[in-house]
Amino acid sequence: MFDCAIIGAGPAGVTAAIYLRRNYFKVAIIEKNCVGGQIINSPMIANYPGILPTDGASIAYTMSQQLENYSPHFISSEVIDIKKDDHFTVICKDEEVEAQTVLVCSGMHHKILGIKDEQKYLNKGISWCATCDGTLYKGKDVAVVGGGMSALETCIYLSRIVNKIYLIHRRDSFRCDEFLVNKFMSLNKVLKKTEICFNEEIVGMNGKDHLEQLVLKSGRTLNVDGLFECIGFEPNTNFLANLSLINQSGFIIVDKEGNSKVDGLYAAGDVISKDVRQITTAVGDATIAATSIIKRLRNVVF
Amino acid sequence: MFDCAIIGAGPAGVTAAIYLRRNYFKVAIIEKNCVGGQIINSPMIANYPGILPTDGASIAYTMSQQLENYSPHFISSEVIDIKKDDHFTVICKDEEVEAQTVLVCSGMHHKILGIKDEQKYLNKGISWCATCDGTLYKGKDVAVVGGGMSALETCIYLSRIVNKIYLIHRRDSFRCDEFLVNKFMSLNKVLKKTEICFNEEIVGMNGKDHLEQLVLKSGRTLNVDGLFECIGFEPNTNFLANLSLINQSGFIIVDKEGNSKVDGLYAAGDVISKDVRQITTAVGDATIAATSIIKRLRNVVF
Repeated sequence: MFDCAIIGAGPAGVTAAIYLRRNYFKVAIIEKNCVGGQIINSPMIANYPGILPTDGASIAYTMSQQLENYSPHFISSEVIDIKKDDHFTVICKDEEVEAQTVLVCSGMHHKILGIKDEQKYLNKGISWCATCDGTLYKGKDVAVVGGGMSALETCIYLSRIVNKIYLIHRRDSFRCDEFLVNKFMSLNKVLKKTEICFNEEIVGMNGKDHLEQLVLKSGRTLNVDGLFECIGFEPNTNFLANLSLINQSGFIIVDKEGNSKVDGLYAAGDVISKDVRQITTAVGDATIAATSIIKRLRNVVF
Repeated sequence: MFDCAIIGAGPAGVTAAIYLRRNYFKVAIIEKNCVGGQIINSPMIANYPGILPTDGASIAYTMSQQLENYSPHFISSEVIDIKKDDHFTVICKDEEVEAQTVLVCSGMHHKILGIKDEQKYLNKGISWCATCDGTLYKGKDVAVVGGGMSALETCIYLSRIVNKIYLIHRRDSFRCDEFLVNKFMSLNKVLKKTEICFNEEIVGMNGKDHLEQLVLKSGRTLNVDGLFECIGFEPNTNFLANLSLINQSGFIIVDKEGNSKVDGLYAAGDVISKDVRQITTAVGDATIAATSIIKRLRNVVF
């Protein structure tokens, strides 16, 4: 029986493992891919305090060394289901893990368009995070695809950075609150950075090693250096289908200590319902959740 | 006129400066000592994800390089007062800084006993943070001074790590809720790790380069490798005396975006009223506050 089973070894999971192991609790950490989570895919991380700009894989490697130093029980498998009676049973593809508490740090994945050639340009022109990558496109032409809040926020964000934005949306109106639409439109009246392409879809992509051109449904081509895909996120919470603790979008609802509606099942990082998803906020969440789990375990043990 | 004046260049201030400067906002950062804040004094930081165990000064140095890369306007001075009309005026010892928003990341300092010889052993046996340093004393004898929640929490925390704890308190009872006292007492009945020394005070300290011995008021001496001083914190908020935004202990009350009762004056890191004070939570807070400030500045500008 483990004191805590951590699901996911991204920044949140690694942080929690460090804090729990520094208190000598018995920790299992279950990861289906490799240590680091989404940061593995980031070509450049320049906004994490204490580390000079470097690629995500390097930071992930350091995190894997840290994890090794604190020697939690590492399980390389995928979680299928979680059951609770007087303790938790985490059912993985290859084994079952019993634990007093569970901390879900399974993160999320960005939806992608799913068109031909897209795989070739992922992280080579295609991005999902203006806060992370916007600065790479200073003075350049980019496209944003999507028509919701995140697409408009991305356009507003990029307006101060890039030369020109093509906003591509398959419908003829935006799907978000009027306030944001008005803000976007009035900003665009002043800056004239964004050309709105309604009723359009991206059907093809060109470029040698990096994205250079988009082909639209109408046949029009756009020469761009970057494409921000803002068509939504999907949290990695399929394995929680049998517990009612997620919101409409699938993110886990937690209290301010990271505890979910299923008492003892905590969550931290990108997988929780919140506003700001950065590495910094993931490690912050995870520290708060781990601290709360430590307090709980002390009460259980004694 | 700056877009944001950040007060304090510890982990929170540096994080916020990075996020704001990545959006090309005009940022002043005011620091009376040096970049890094309290971490400068930490002999070993082993719980910050992405960085292998190292001394706080090294991490502080990297943060100062990051700050330089993003070139905010650095002001080496102490803040005396803040005034607000249609914008903020931050009054420093040597100059005045005008800004649309203010982010207070001024941190806190631990109270110290104030006795002779104490200065000699600060960070050489004297610690304030069991979460940070407890693991340095595995299997050793330590003392904890204080009689409040943090002293008892520290004893409970250390009980699983150290060999023996002397809990030194100048009164004859604890000053915290019964629940915690009961928890501590019943844990101690099982583990027998803590010897409670009521009506005692530390009047002297001995040791060559590192703390080795405490001398108590009664004349008793205790041979210990470490002393955890749990006699409270003092937030660095003297300069906010004219604004009513702090709680009874002097910490700044903020909403979930980091905004205080004085709209536009944000705060993040150790200086805010919260439960968990770690580097990870400081950088998390600061990212959330900076993101909110960025949204606000966009609305003001356009």
